[in-house]
Amino acid sequence: MEEQRYEEFMIEGRNAVLEAFRAEKTIDKLYIQDGCKDGPIQSIVREAKKGDTILQFVSRERLDQMSSTGRHQGVIAQAAAYEYAEVEDLLKAARDKGEEPFLILLDGIEDPHNLGAIIRTANQLGAHGVIIPKRRAVGLTGTVARTSAGAINYTPVAKVTNLVQTMEELKKEGLWFVCADMDGDVMYHANMTGPIGLVIGNEGSGVSRLVKEKCDFTVAIPMKGQIDSLNASVAMGVLGYEIFRQRYQQK
Amino acid sequence: MEEQRYEEFMIEGRNAVLEAFRAEKTIDKLYIQDGCKDGPIQSIVREAKKGDTILQFVSRERLDQMSSTGRHQGVIAQAAAYEYAEVEDLLKAARDKGEEPFLILLDGIEDPHNLGAIIRTANQLGAHGVIIPKRRAVGLTGTVARTSAGAINYTPVAKVTNLVQTMEELKKEGLWFVCADMDGDVMYHANMTGPIGLVIGNEGSGVSRLVKEKCDFTVAIPMKGQIDSLNASVAMGVLGYEIFRQRYQQK
Repeated sequence: MEEQRYEEFMIEGRNAVLEAFRAEKTIDKLYIQDGCKDGPIQSIVREAKKGDTILQFVSRERLDQMSSTGRHQGVIAQAAAYEYAEVEDLLKAARDKGEEPFLILLDGIEDPHNLGAIIRTANQLGAHGVIIPKRRAVGLTGTVARTSAGAINYTPVAKVTNLVQTMEELKKEGLWFVCADMDGDVMYHANMTGPIGLVIGNEGSGVSRLVKEKCDFTVAIPMKGQIDSLNASVAMGVLGYEIFRQRYQQK
Repeated sequence: MEEQRYEEFMIEGRNAVLEAFRAEKTIDKLYIQDGCKDGPIQSIVREAKKGDTILQFVSRERLDQMSSTGRHQGVIAQAAAYEYAEVEDLLKAARDKGEEPFLILLDGIEDPHNLGAIIRTANQLGAHGVIIPKRRAVGLTGTVARTSAGAINYTPVAKVTNLVQTMEELKKEGLWFVCADMDGDVMYHANMTGPIGLVIGNEGSGVSRLVKEKCDFTVAIPMKGQIDSLNASVAMGVLGYEIFRQRYQQK
């Protein structure tokens, strides 16, 4: 069993705050920019008044100071901490839906924009969750929450001490692991149906050796360009949707 | 004919600088952090000495001050301006390769990370170029160059005054336009072979009405999640690779 972890953070931006309310997250305090009265802000205030959120109107300068993303759009919410899920919760999510597990494993994503975009894409793919390592990787920060556009409220993220060990345990549950790497088979030719874990590597160094050795096969995105690779969140999206196509188009 | 535009900027980070040299861009001046002598830096210095680049060793503090991305990795190059291409150059690139045109049109991408990632993906897809509007959109800034991981050196970007008018002109050249939007047909069912322009909308508001009206058809990425949409650069990657699959897998 993984220990549970908590992290406090601020949610910034209108869509992210509204999504947090709609997903019934506990918002302890809401900061709204003085004079902001447009539609989206009014919706947020209405949501806030349904619960026991403390509402506070502040100057734009104060919001700018509080903001870590620089893009608060006139609203910052102080949320109850996001909770990391357990790996077991991800498997349970699949069982509850009567689906074969489809997990995303991130071997050292460092850029919060990439992690946020990946959680967002995982949600749209109907993946059952994302697994990240504790060390040398970004966690669930405010920027990640904002970039995920609310997906962080729906798609569970588990944080594990040892990715290789977690993969061994998941193999006992029947999962196959597919590693994204340029020296693999072209993705169209690999059979990626069935219970699967898609492994995406670090932005600079790719998938680490030990994790790669645990993978059952390696697939490549076809690339006709002059440069090396794709952005990590784009690569995850392209491979994730190839898995999606194989899983759902055949039915 | 579109007028040509120039923008000066700094290239930051090892891969981006090295790629710029390899693509034979004119680097006017190169700033290296004092004491940096590792392999990648030595390769960069070697490239610099081949041409008439002015080489200057400076303190880390000085580089930090100069840096706009905060991630210079010990090297900043002052490049001759990137030149925007003409739309005609993009069509010529396709003709020269004996391929049907495959263009990416961005209707108001504002985030430089998204534009950089999209140029990078366009390069890997073998697309013949990217078209952006002059107003209400990010241009070829240093952050865009860095995020493109060197792709900006190979994939031409044209900047146009009026996207709708450009689409009309391109239709005369035989192009079809496909618009990414949630109310379209699922992308697997649309025929996206042939000379094509893929239109991606603004991060928040999507494709504008007038541009959408000029599109020949609208396609959607299937989404099973609880949120609204995907990150713009991920959506472009997923749709771009569906076009790729249709164009190249059938052969």
